[in-house]
Amino acid sequence: MLVANPVRYAMIGGGEGAFIGPVHRIAAAIAGNCELVAGALSSDAQKARRSGAAIGLAEERSYASFQDLLRGEKGRPDGAEFIAIVTPNHVHAPAAIAALEAGFPVLCDKPLTDTLDAALEIAAAAKRTGGLVGVTHTYTGYPMVREARDLVSSGKFGAVRRVAVKYTQGWLAKAEDGVGKQAEWRIDPKRSGLAGAFGDIGTHAFNLVEFITGERMTRLSAEIRAAVEGRQLDDDGAAMFHLDGGGRGTLVASQICTGEANGLAISIWCEEAGLHWRQEEPNSLRVSRRGGPEEIWTPGGDRKYLGEAAMAVTRLPSGHPEGYLEAFANIYRDFADAVRGNAPAQPSYASLADGLAGMCFIQAAHDSSANDAAWVDLQETAR
Amino acid sequence: MLVANPVRYAMIGGGEGAFIGPVHRIAAAIAGNCELVAGALSSDAQKARRSGAAIGLAEERSYASFQDLLRGEKGRPDGAEFIAIVTPNHVHAPAAIAALEAGFPVLCDKPLTDTLDAALEIAAAAKRTGGLVGVTHTYTGYPMVREARDLVSSGKFGAVRRVAVKYTQGWLAKAEDGVGKQAEWRIDPKRSGLAGAFGDIGTHAFNLVEFITGERMTRLSAEIRAAVEGRQLDDDGAAMFHLDGGGRGTLVASQICTGEANGLAISIWCEEAGLHWRQEEPNSLRVSRRGGPEEIWTPGGDRKYLGEAAMAVTRLPSGHPEGYLEAFANIYRDFADAVRGNAPAQPSYASLADGLAGMCFIQAAHDSSANDAAWVDLQETAR
Amino acid sequence: MLVANPVRYAMIGGGEGAFIGPVHRIAAAIAGNCELVAGALSSDAQKARRSGAAIGLAEERSYASFQDLLRGEKGRPDGAEFIAIVTPNHVHAPAAIAALEAGFPVLCDKPLTDTLDAALEIAAAAKRTGGLVGVTHTYTGYPMVREARDLVSSGKFGAVRRVAVKYTQGWLAKAEDGVGKQAEWRIDPKRSGLAGAFGDIGTHAFNLVEFITGERMTRLSAEIRAAVEGRQLDDDGAAMFHLDGGGRGTLVASQICTGEANGLAISIWCEEAGLHWRQEEPNSLRVSRRGGPEEIWTPGGDRKYLGEAAMAVTRLPSGHPEGYLEAFANIYRDFADAVRGNAPAQPSYASLADGLAGMCFIQAAHDSSANDAAWVDLQETAR
Amino acid sequence: MLVANPVRYAMIGGGEGAFIGPVHRIAAAIAGNCELVAGALSSDAQKARRSGAAIGLAEERSYASFQDLLRGEKGRPDGAEFIAIVTPNHVHAPAAIAALEAGFPVLCDKPLTDTLDAALEIAAAAKRTGGLVGVTHTYTGYPMVREARDLVSSGKFGAVRRVAVKYTQGWLAKAEDGVGKQAEWRIDPKRSGLAGAFGDIGTHAFNLVEFITGERMTRLSAEIRAAVEGRQLDDDGAAMFHLDGGGRGTLVASQICTGEANGLAISIWCEEAGLHWRQEEPNSLRVSRRGGPEEIWTPGGDRKYLGEAAMAVTRLPSGHPEGYLEAFANIYRDFADAVRGNAPAQPSYASLADGLAGMCFIQAAHDSSANDAAWVDLQETAR
Repeated sequence: MLVANPVRYAMIGGGEGAFIGPVHRIAAAIAGNCELVAGALSSDAQKARRSGAAIGLAEERSYASFQDLLRGEKGRPDGAEFIAIVTPNHVHAPAAIAALEAGFPVLCDKPLTDTLDAALEIAAAAKRTGGLVGVTHTYTGYPMVREARDLVSSGKFGAVRRVAVKYTQGWLAKAEDGVGKQAEWRIDPKRSGLAGAFGDIGTHAFNLVEFITGERMTRLSAEIRAAVEGRQLDDDGAAMFHLDGGGRGTLVASQICTGEANGLAISIWCEEAGLHWRQEEPNSLRVSRRGGPEEIWTPGGDRKYLGEAAMAVTRLPSGHPEGYLEAFANIYRDFADAVRGNAPAQPSYASLADGLAGMCFIQAAHDSSANDAAWVDLQETAR
Repeated sequence: MLVANPVRYAMIGGGEGAFIGPVHRIAAAIAGNCELVAGALSSDAQKARRSGAAIGLAEERSYASFQDLLRGEKGRPDGAEFIAIVTPNHVHAPAAIAALEAGFPVLCDKPLTDTLDAALEIAAAAKRTGGLVGVTHTYTGYPMVREARDLVSSGKFGAVRRVAVKYTQGWLAKAEDGVGKQAEWRIDPKRSGLAGAFGDIGTHAFNLVEFITGERMTRLSAEIRAAVEGRQLDDDGAAMFHLDGGGRGTLVASQICTGEANGLAISIWCEEAGLHWRQEEPNSLRVSRRGGPEEIWTPGGDRKYLGEAAMAVTRLPSGHPEGYLEAFANIYRDFADAVRGNAPAQPSYASLADGLAGMCFIQAAHDSSANDAAWVDLQETAR
Repeated sequence: MLVANPVRYAMIGGGEGAFIGPVHRIAAAIAGNCELVAGALSSDAQKARRSGAAIGLAEERSYASFQDLLRGEKGRPDGAEFIAIVTPNHVHAPAAIAALEAGFPVLCDKPLTDTLDAALEIAAAAKRTGGLVGVTHTYTGYPMVREARDLVSSGKFGAVRRVAVKYTQGWLAKAEDGVGKQAEWRIDPKRSGLAGAFGDIGTHAFNLVEFITGERMTRLSAEIRAAVEGRQLDDDGAAMFHLDGGGRGTLVASQICTGEANGLAISIWCEEAGLHWRQEEPNSLRVSRRGGPEEIWTPGGDRKYLGEAAMAVTRLPSGHPEGYLEAFANIYRDFADAVRGNAPAQPSYASLADGLAGMCFIQAAHDSSANDAAWVDLQETAR
Repeated sequence: MLVANPVRYAMIGGGEGAFIGPVHRIAAAIAGNCELVAGALSSDAQKARRSGAAIGLAEERSYASFQDLLRGEKGRPDGAEFIAIVTPNHVHAPAAIAALEAGFPVLCDKPLTDTLDAALEIAAAAKRTGGLVGVTHTYTGYPMVREARDLVSSGKFGAVRRVAVKYTQGWLAKAEDGVGKQAEWRIDPKRSGLAGAFGDIGTHAFNLVEFITGERMTRLSAEIRAAVEGRQLDDDGAAMFHLDGGGRGTLVASQICTGEANGLAISIWCEEAGLHWRQEEPNSLRVSRRGGPEEIWTPGGDRKYLGEAAMAVTRLPSGHPEGYLEAFANIYRDFADAVRGNAPAQPSYASLADGLAGMCFIQAAHDSSANDAAWVDLQETAR
């Protein structure tokens, strides 16, 4: 914690061997306005206890199950104020719904759930309880992504004409890849649900498109497949899509792109300017204008040309690179503020509607692909 | 000329105000084994004469029409040995067929013709006469593109899994764009034929995919459109495609991408490595391997790690950048050698079959787009 | 905190309006094995109290002076285990010496002190008390800098031949620059001591050279100056230098380089390979070898080709950029481990000897510059 | 030739196995307004004849010596109009003086000569005869370098504060390097004169500084050395320098920087903006301003924001990369125009005064280095 009176939170999932749980905890530490006070770090009670001890949780607040946690924290005057869910996808819905029912706001890892139906159940629970749900689409926490949104969604660059987004990784390039705790559940349909490559990382790409443009994807034509023999979930795919403002786009999501690390990149061409951003060099936003030199926008407290949204999440002077963890931290910071009733005007976290839209995207991609890439409308009613 | 006894050539098109004609002439000058001896530089006789005088053609070899040129040069002992065609697209076929009939090899700008039917007529003429036809798909003349072909088509990198190619320009971004001699015919269906953005630059992207992979595109699903109101030809589009080796890809070709100059870029991910090349920084070929650092391959006579194909077109030591004109020059050099019977093992110029394939690609894209992006097979018989 | 039983630390300096104090606190939060328990955040008692309250320090452990802090924490069973000093330079020595005398290990911001004499006094105190002193030369905490050290200092790349290091900023480019709390003391000789541009950032550059090469700078010829009229301390300068292994180098440190943010960059050419690193894109280490393609080394837990030193400070999979704060965090993590007796084999923090060497460097640069850039030996005895 | 009535030139040097001679000939071919009509391509008569035949020179105009050439061409109505000298350095002066005496303008490769004295003799001959002398400092022919000159020397960016220029190559990194015809003379003091690394490439760096800033280097402090054992000429060195406008700079020139190809790069920081250019990516000029995003300026006939000097040497639309040969071609084009009395306002070729300044630079660097890097004034009288 870096401020007086931080917001207390509890974590479900994220025990020994997990990847994203520790990331959430560091992010919260950077945010500074959050304090981890409890956890049910594993569905295995013994492992949950061991994991809690390792990160310094008080013994009585390191719970054996998420149900215990919700019950225990609800009963304490100093109980958790929100719940972070970092389990495999199939646990998101039961945990989130139980948390909402118990009166806790929920910050959930992406994709929102394993199936669209499960996502709709969370939505129903949120509606019923009035509880706050946020989704951690990390990349919207980057200052330059927020600046991009300012520039494009404001209309300063004119109508969006074309979008090219790709999210390419290589860690599943071969049949022998995908072992180890944090990898295995991602390629197991029982735990991941629909979320192969399109769900795991394609949703990030989808979310980025909607976030920066401020528009909605209305329809898509997709081809997804398990390119590596023996795999049950898609590991590679592409789509063409339409935006509701008339723009068109392409989206590639693949985990078999040998040599790629975490290659999320987006180009958006508008009437008056184009804009390019790559997650692996997140502190540069390239802006190419009609008739002028290309510009490289960079974050930093001294960058007077940046808008408020970018400035609000910039911690350092220009030239001091911030990265993935700081982007993630912005999500925690904003969510914690929202829990206390101080939601920022443009929060870094994705909303429940965004998370639901991501599930519609996954479902539509599967439906289109099963039908020879026929055009499929994204379910507006679900959104 | 830079060598003794260069190959004599004549040019059809490329008079005052033209863009690509002068490029061909500089390219031939760099090649060094070519000498321009005659021309019919415009379909307007007076302009043809003026244009010929300006570039130093002998008066009697600056012809008023391509018919005159073919007749005149055929009759001379020192007549042209091949014909370069750099006219608007709709003249390619009549000029090429006449040249072939007159016994001249033909080096033709891309796309091969304005319509697939016209292209098939050239093919028939070539078959009938046994004449050599080359097409100037400039980008295959770059050393690093040739190296890429060596690496991928040889199988060294394993099977091709995914391709992402884009060719984005911004010079038609607005309704008021596209004026001036060299621009106007490109957006006029009478002179360009099918060749809007997909034909003008999409064919380059298509050609690059087939060239580097050594595979054939078998089918595609495309959406092309005139995004700017009032335009008759497509200025923007995208496609998903299949390769005959099982790989999948996306292709974007657009001339309304504000801020883009000549943004041809390709990524190819194979089983063992990925590879990335951008035309605007043509001297870097990025190779990303499974488990090792990314590598930046660069041309240069001292780069012992390069294959023969790249080395054969490298003029300078490493660190001395070569560009677009040198790539183009390689095409001229190889074609001139072929005219004299010394065709290199891997020529830089595209073959007639490649040019025809490009026309099949354009046709298929139009057909698919007209049918809501349904999958269309590229016409193998035509190829 | 992210682990059980973190190391308790107290901070001197870093109150309202400070730049580097909050950076230290975030860094410690990321490190995860540190917990801030006390502070004397300002030399102004009231401001100290206010600052402490703002960051959640217990009232009784938010002290009015560093003397109070040392006394208070010494007397507690749960007292601080080390002291972080983040004051203006002229307070470093009195605070550090008092802390050492009181038995506390000291982690001090750079440069070590305002004058070489003051630094020698710290060294004497450390010798007398046997206390541990670390200096926060942030940039040595980056994984790729540590990898660079592995590659070069190990001799794998052969003898170091030439070094080019520069640290360029633009924030003092004009006479009107340099206002605000955190800026003002830096250009005031009473508080900064010798540390103008050469002291403030030149020492980072110097430290980076010695860290990566594993060699010592033996002599230098420097020209430093106050380029902007009216300034008392140097804001711009350059030096040529020799390393004890026979290599030669140039060093530029300037704060008047308009348009530069935090431009620390180093190139080191050895017999067998060259190596290039830029702080503003810290996750790429370029390695250029004799006869092979250039390589881009990047961090990530899955990068098996990296050495232990880089791996030990890598938190995330490849492609997830870490930045300045994470580099800083590594310094805290290692120092905290050392305080508990678990110093890593290659700690990220600079040693007292390194800090002292930095002061020798500053002094030598001033001496040389005052004598028309005559060569000056770095005082080996002081080191 | 690409125009009517090109300027006729003859070449001295550049026969079999040479590097720079063929580069000159391609450059002249691209320029288009030049035609090679005669040559004395080698000092070995038989080799000269063979070399002339290989490139298509008429037998009677392929001379056995430069004396023969000057005599022969002088006597012809269609004789050469200027002489290009591309021999090893020690032949520059005798050939140039003889050519000037015979009434020919001279375009000479750099450095101007092997010694400062020899350069002064050329200057005297030029004065005596009124003959035009140009020097081929290739890099000033790049559009973006010319744009840089426009921006800086015009004062638009304010006073020059600091310059960092480096020219690093690796081709002499080892004792076994430097074999082969074109390499050997460069490391042989009998043929290269003073021109080791500082003369061969350092002069390019020096010239670039003076060209872009429009200022003169007034004094320097240099250390140069033969880093590789057994070498007679310097292969590595650095200098600090002053400009007559008050700016300061560093210059590195080295041919032992393993992994470097042709690494000429310059940064110039002025009061209002900074500017960065790298020869290996010559089509990008980075401009970093106070308070705004960094800009990437690129060439192209459609780049309305470029000044006249850059536009005058731009052949292609933006996005079509031009390289080293095109830069070189601009020098030929401008020199040929000057020979006919149409010298452009800002010619691409370096003047005799520039060439002489380069020799002063080399001499000063040697003098300084011999005196422990003491400051040495560049000989203004010689310039």
